Amino acid sequence: MTGTPKLVAHAIPGIPLIQADDDIVAIIINRAAEAGLHLRAGDALVISSKIVSKSKGRLVALDEVEPSADALALAAETSKDPRLVELVLRESSRVSRRRPGVLVTEHRLGLVSANAGVDQSNIEAGDDMALLLPLDPDGAAREYRAAIKRRLGIQVAVIVSDSHGRPFRVGNVGVAIGAAGLPTVKDLRGQRDLYGRMLEVTQVAYADLIASAAHLLCGEADEGLPAVLLRGLDLSAPHGCAADLNRAAEHDLYR
Amino acid sequence: MTGTPKLVAHAIPGIPLIQADDDIVAIIINRAAEAGLHLRAGDALVISSKIVSKSKGRLVALDEVEPSADALALAAETSKDPRLVELVLRESSRVSRRRPGVLVTEHRLGLVSANAGVDQSNIEAGDDMALLLPLDPDGAAREYRAAIKRRLGIQVAVIVSDSHGRPFRVGNVGVAIGAAGLPTVKDLRGQRDLYGRMLEVTQVAYADLIASAAHLLCGEADEGLPAVLLRGLDLSAPHGCAADLNRAAEHDLYR
Repeated sequence: MTGTPKLVAHAIPGIPLIQADDDIVAIIINRAAEAGLHLRAGDALVISSKIVSKSKGRLVALDEVEPSADALALAAETSKDPRLVELVLRESSRVSRRRPGVLVTEHRLGLVSANAGVDQSNIEAGDDMALLLPLDPDGAAREYRAAIKRRLGIQVAVIVSDSHGRPFRVGNVGVAIGAAGLPTVKDLRGQRDLYGRMLEVTQVAYADLIASAAHLLCGEADEGLPAVLLRGLDLSAPHGCAADLNRAAEHDLYR
Repeated sequence: MTGTPKLVAHAIPGIPLIQADDDIVAIIINRAAEAGLHLRAGDALVISSKIVSKSKGRLVALDEVEPSADALALAAETSKDPRLVELVLRESSRVSRRRPGVLVTEHRLGLVSANAGVDQSNIEAGDDMALLLPLDPDGAAREYRAAIKRRLGIQVAVIVSDSHGRPFRVGNVGVAIGAAGLPTVKDLRGQRDLYGRMLEVTQVAYADLIASAAHLLCGEADEGLPAVLLRGLDLSAPHGCAADLNRAAEHDLYR
């Protein structure tokens, strides 16, 4: 099988429930090593935004949230908890779509998604708490990449991943909301196809593909596998950040 | 590393340019075997819709296409070749968005995508020909799964993949437009999270995740790797088809 392009993805087992101020890089490296997985230069590490948020203290107690008049009205319209809607509005720059049971907004990070990523699954104390997205997921990815370099002396790519629904299609996919040390968008414009014809507009959402590949292993339910190691990616194109994956509003025909 | 959830993806090398009536299952099995990759029960095979279309004779000579008045008007509006626009309209049930350089339609298969998947890259004779999507990609996936069962006596999952742009985000991702022998949407509703809280709405677009993982290896430019073998997937949930991934128009807030 020499020479065959090959990709391997391992879920890192045994990562405990994460608390505020936990050093998740240390935890991931140690759990990986215990499972016989030793990070190498050129590997990519996909980390669920959920544990990034928890370690960075983004849990909010709902009984400390005072809904605004706007939140109360929108909560009535969408049949949602007004305190959750208040958090969604604080996280968002605008509402994209509303309907009973559905609230899609544009997050201040530029992501268009349900409930601005405010989440009540897989968090302690269930109904009384909500978890917000990390304040700066691209910054977190850079921080983790630097921490791995310091600890192990190697450069790995880091993706902070989230799970999004999307228009037109059923079901969630993985997306990269933070990234460091990899091409996030691969631009094939100017390359030629098999027949020598110039490719006109072909950009590949490389970091989203990686997040989706990792999503095959991490699951969303009770498996608790919030970190995946991928080996065999081609990271040679110019590196970018996850914000590069947000289409500018003026080029978007749907939001 | 025993017990660690692990996924391996291999691009199948050496697949030649495909012509109408080629037996692509035979070609893929043979090339895989020559590369030391022997299909096993439970593997998934992701096949680019492009070679499915070619083998099924979906190449169209543009000089045989007579643009309708609607196509001529839409071509002027979008700055596209009227013959291509005519093909797009024939393939589509409606236009979703139009703008100079952009034509997004709802394909009769239920896919909302640019140019109804009508493609001029990686096809012979370049500007004079266009390639349409397969007439029945779910049927093709079932056909290939059955052919592999006949030849090798094993059940593998088959996905016919395409590359789509999407609202809100830059770059293309892999999507499943045909599928057989796997869960295409995994429904986690009714499962409990790490803290015993019931997950409310969590559907995972499992077949799209697989198509995106394969997309990391197959590329879009001159690499010519139209088939990827994946090993280590959990295919135990109820099986579906790719059409299950199309959100019904009445539940879609964007088209």
